[in-house]
Amino acid sequence: MVRADEGVGFLLRYENVAWYEDGAVRILDRRIYPVRTEYVVCRHYGEVAQAIADMVTQSGGPFLAAAMGMALAAYEARDLPEAALLARLEEAADTLAHARPTTAAKMERVTARAMDAARAALAAGRTGLNLVEALRENAVNQINENYIRYEAIGKLLADKIPQGGTIMTQCFAETVVGTVLRECRRRGNLVKVICPETRPYFQGARLTASVACDMGFDVTVISDNMPGYVMEKKQVDLFTSAADVITLDGHIINKVGTFQIALAASYWGIPYYVTGSPNPSHPDCSSVVIEERDPLLVMDAMGTRTTLEGVRGYYPAFDVTPPKLCDGVITEKGIFSPFDLKRYFAS
Amino acid sequence: MVRADEGVGFLLRYENVAWYEDGAVRILDRRIYPVRTEYVVCRHYGEVAQAIADMVTQSGGPFLAAAMGMALAAYEARDLPEAALLARLEEAADTLAHARPTTAAKMERVTARAMDAARAALAAGRTGLNLVEALRENAVNQINENYIRYEAIGKLLADKIPQGGTIMTQCFAETVVGTVLRECRRRGNLVKVICPETRPYFQGARLTASVACDMGFDVTVISDNMPGYVMEKKQVDLFTSAADVITLDGHIINKVGTFQIALAASYWGIPYYVTGSPNPSHPDCSSVVIEERDPLLVMDAMGTRTTLEGVRGYYPAFDVTPPKLCDGVITEKGIFSPFDLKRYFAS
Repeated sequence: MVRADEGVGFLLRYENVAWYEDGAVRILDRRIYPVRTEYVVCRHYGEVAQAIADMVTQSGGPFLAAAMGMALAAYEARDLPEAALLARLEEAADTLAHARPTTAAKMERVTARAMDAARAALAAGRTGLNLVEALRENAVNQINENYIRYEAIGKLLADKIPQGGTIMTQCFAETVVGTVLRECRRRGNLVKVICPETRPYFQGARLTASVACDMGFDVTVISDNMPGYVMEKKQVDLFTSAADVITLDGHIINKVGTFQIALAASYWGIPYYVTGSPNPSHPDCSSVVIEERDPLLVMDAMGTRTTLEGVRGYYPAFDVTPPKLCDGVITEKGIFSPFDLKRYFAS
Repeated sequence: MVRADEGVGFLLRYENVAWYEDGAVRILDRRIYPVRTEYVVCRHYGEVAQAIADMVTQSGGPFLAAAMGMALAAYEARDLPEAALLARLEEAADTLAHARPTTAAKMERVTARAMDAARAALAAGRTGLNLVEALRENAVNQINENYIRYEAIGKLLADKIPQGGTIMTQCFAETVVGTVLRECRRRGNLVKVICPETRPYFQGARLTASVACDMGFDVTVISDNMPGYVMEKKQVDLFTSAADVITLDGHIINKVGTFQIALAASYWGIPYYVTGSPNPSHPDCSSVVIEERDPLLVMDAMGTRTTLEGVRGYYPAFDVTPPKLCDGVITEKGIFSPFDLKRYFAS
């Protein structure tokens, strides 16, 4: 198996994201890394879905986890007759795809690909552990394809960063953090990276900053109330984020906070580039569910309650950035105006 | 002694802010309340200055602490001859006024008032413990005057809040949180309050939310990446903050994050009112020092490190909101346009 995760930092190595082996999927617990490096071990595909729902892994992690979860489901059903086995895989595909609401459309494509791989493998006579292996190969192939896409995206994004420049990110843009920084290093462009910490889970501080630091870059963490001030003070050249959903009409649904950073970037005349591709399942925002998570999480920091009993919390996980605040959608096919995304499908 | 802190919640009672008694100033440790309710006890005025520098108390707290610190300085110097005693008080005034840079101009007025009170008391024959008592009275008088100002400001701010409306605050606006909510309750207006948590110290979650909850209001905490989204989603009627400095040309220097919330409020057409008064020592921003604090603080949450060794932090404590993002400066003399603050001094 050829793998595309060379030189992208500890956190993005496939084994550290999610990996099927010997009847279990092992997922790095991104909720606590790097405070502690621990893995959640799932011995039933339902546990993989639960781990995704519980945010054990996030950003691009759930897609690999779900694909590896399909290998686990095949392992669990390995002794069933083919029809029952396929029915069980369909159940697993459905469960895994709907572990979290906002990204369900994307996840359905991941699990549908796994189903195609399973049918193709069965047609080729691969059964039992051989079918399981076919599904693991499918998971690696899918993430490799993702890396190939993000290799191209990383290059286009690197083109936008001046030599020795400073970029600001939001949350954890996952693969693209690895590919854009790998590309910058190849070009000898030792960019500086500023990461808002991304409460309540601290993905910016714990994940993005750790990957960039691991890869040898100068990384600075700030809190989420600082981007608007710091981007001007520290002369940020570019703001970039990934997206959970990019609608066909150019709205960007991403980790809550993206909107207000994009708004501040626009105020200061700093370009905002989003990486990813438009999602044909979402013509506009009306079909997107903004997930709301446990309110207790915003009243807690690293296990300590931050306010009085009696106070409420509210935790929308995503926000919506309108197309007018975005300077370009960087896809594997090129850079598109957020107002002109239908061209992406024509090209 | 008449006191103006009735019905404003535990955290704003004078004894819980900073209080001189029997050779010590006792200051509530706002860095950890309400996780723990602890007081820092200072037996030397230099310890009061250090406590202010260390953020044991913040927002309006340092002004009462400094005034009480002058009573402590008088206690320490009570047996000195008058000239030496006054010299010692001058030293204390200088030390206390310059404990933190951004608010030094305001603090100088507090300690100058204490010096005036000391001279007047000495002229009236009050020496020894009687002088100490005169300085404690001065501290209470100063904070009472502050309450009288903020009583007026609270009423003007309450006029702007629709019945049953929702307001968003930033950080901990201290006295005005007490006076505006007390006024809303008098009017039977049970407003809802949304508090961004205010990293890295969590003043919004720990202090503002606790005061409002203590006073019986419906309070919701969100993290600092959420205001831009939540103010539209939850139909916020008004954004308000205090200010560490309001320059004569209408720039607002306040807890970092204020700028990006004001920017989002402007985007959604939600009014932003700042409470306080313009500072004649600052014609514009050029004379304002934006304090930068220990970078380790933004890489820590409630005592747990949030990122890898090798990652940097950056912690500007304040930001600057331009006058065009502010709908009015609410002072004890009325509401002024931020573009027309010289009128404040003429009225």
